Amino acid sequence: MSAISESSAVAPATIGNVGPGFDVLGLAISGLTDRVTARRAAHDEVRIIAITGDGGALPSSVASNTAGLAATHTRRLAGREDAGIDLFVEKGIPLESGLGSSAASAAAAAHAVNQILGGPLRRVDLIGPCVEAEAIVSGRHADNVAPALLGGLVLVRSLEPRPVIQRLPVPERLVVVVVTPELRLPTREARSAIPDMVPLAARTRNAANIATFISACYSSDLGLLTDCVEDAVVAQARLPLIRGGSEAIAAARDNGALAASISGAGPSLFALCHSTIVAQSIRSAMIDAFRAAGVGADGIISPADCPGARVARSSEGG
Amino acid sequence: MSAISESSAVAPATIGNVGPGFDVLGLAISGLTDRVTARRAAHDEVRIIAITGDGGALPSSVASNTAGLAATHTRRLAGREDAGIDLFVEKGIPLESGLGSSAASAAAAAHAVNQILGGPLRRVDLIGPCVEAEAIVSGRHADNVAPALLGGLVLVRSLEPRPVIQRLPVPERLVVVVVTPELRLPTREARSAIPDMVPLAARTRNAANIATFISACYSSDLGLLTDCVEDAVVAQARLPLIRGGSEAIAAARDNGALAASISGAGPSLFALCHSTIVAQSIRSAMIDAFRAAGVGADGIISPADCPGARVARSSEGG
Repeated sequence: MSAISESSAVAPATIGNVGPGFDVLGLAISGLTDRVTARRAAHDEVRIIAITGDGGALPSSVASNTAGLAATHTRRLAGREDAGIDLFVEKGIPLESGLGSSAASAAAAAHAVNQILGGPLRRVDLIGPCVEAEAIVSGRHADNVAPALLGGLVLVRSLEPRPVIQRLPVPERLVVVVVTPELRLPTREARSAIPDMVPLAARTRNAANIATFISACYSSDLGLLTDCVEDAVVAQARLPLIRGGSEAIAAARDNGALAASISGAGPSLFALCHSTIVAQSIRSAMIDAFRAAGVGADGIISPADCPGARVARSSEGG
Repeated sequence: MSAISESSAVAPATIGNVGPGFDVLGLAISGLTDRVTARRAAHDEVRIIAITGDGGALPSSVASNTAGLAATHTRRLAGREDAGIDLFVEKGIPLESGLGSSAASAAAAAHAVNQILGGPLRRVDLIGPCVEAEAIVSGRHADNVAPALLGGLVLVRSLEPRPVIQRLPVPERLVVVVVTPELRLPTREARSAIPDMVPLAARTRNAANIATFISACYSSDLGLLTDCVEDAVVAQARLPLIRGGSEAIAAARDNGALAASISGAGPSLFALCHSTIVAQSIRSAMIDAFRAAGVGADGIISPADCPGARVARSSEGG
């Protein structure tokens, strides 16, 4: 039987911290992906041979790059610590934009490496290696890597002692708008803006909101989303860091969005709506709001139920 | 057309603060009810004529009794502030036991009063008057009055500017055990035990837990309940106030409970399980655990999908 000597995988951009689901809810979107090619090599290391599409910003050291780290952890989990792997990373998702760029590289790398090792691990097993990789770059959370691997809408039930993840039904007809302003907001800065302690009453409100959000997902009652996709603690603390952000969220609501909030740690924003027609209005209005604040912006429209990491190309070898 | 001159309504005991749903999730149970009879009278006041079953503990002043308060607020909401009403309150639910005793009296009174006024209000409209009544006695929350009125499992989405309530599906096959120790734990004391501020990480964990709980309700996947019916902040702060409580919860788990926690503000505890047979073992084990701690206890077994307030008897009059 011939083994696969090379595999290319793509993984999607993701919205983390979806609405009331800080560190808990993540959603895969379409239209932006990272691609990682893994190739068997005669050495016994994981090496990053090339990174493109990052403008030279990413480290090519395996120990500080999520693709390299995810490959290393995947190889270890598969019991193949001696397997030599060369990695080629093609970034399609902008860095530090709040769209799970580092998670997508980790997910694509883990998936490609699993392929060239003969597929010993299930897809869900790859979440652990990707969480370990993310932890180095943007904190220990799975709300980007889990949807980047599995696709769709994902609930992170717990991380310790190992990640426990659940796929949730995606409400029918839901369309997602993502608008990314030309601002840099490093994840660490966004994390430091939020308080360590929150009022119990804010916890209660958040619990009611996420309960309503989950109810909307199962019942496909989009009307329920109207008042529950907010986070009076986290999103409110971060919104002032995003110039034009408040105006863009208001513009989304004024143009028919069911809900709008910050994607991941920002500065990208997302909005949820009923239809692609409405989504086009919302995207334009949000981009205009950023421009009125002196910030360039671009946006995409995505269905809410998108695939996760998948093989883009494989080559068989001896 | 003859008007109803007298109506008796019963309302069930309820579990408030269900698992991760502090102030947010409530569940009606069967086997314990309060009954309130409302009778049209020639005066223009709300009067409490008699209270039985309370051992003389409850105030008969309308302004400090939830039945009287709920009747007053219901009459006002119906635009009938001049209607004379005599109330007869029969307590079947023990006081300050964590089983929504004050809420049940409010719900039964509101329902009975609405009947003798000709039913001008919908059932859901009665939640507001009952919340106002509860606020005087045990704080402003709806997780007991809403299931006491509507039955079943209820999500309190928000209270302000008015209560917004959603019925949730009850997982199939779910059986509830409630054990009440012979301890008094006033709601105010139980409230003062919990902190005003909680770590953000605890909020995140609670969000994941309630999201999982709601998912279990919609999918009837009882296995999901195993790790999400807990509250590391509220229940943990209150459990030391309940002698034998930790041991009783451990006994429930050891005897097949999917989950167990404090009912409302305590001291009653509840456990969730698959079947009536298992429920009988759990009830016995929990009662034995309390007795081993020197505390008498009694318990009931209830299906998880129980009716709310309902007319028990009406008399027509001129």
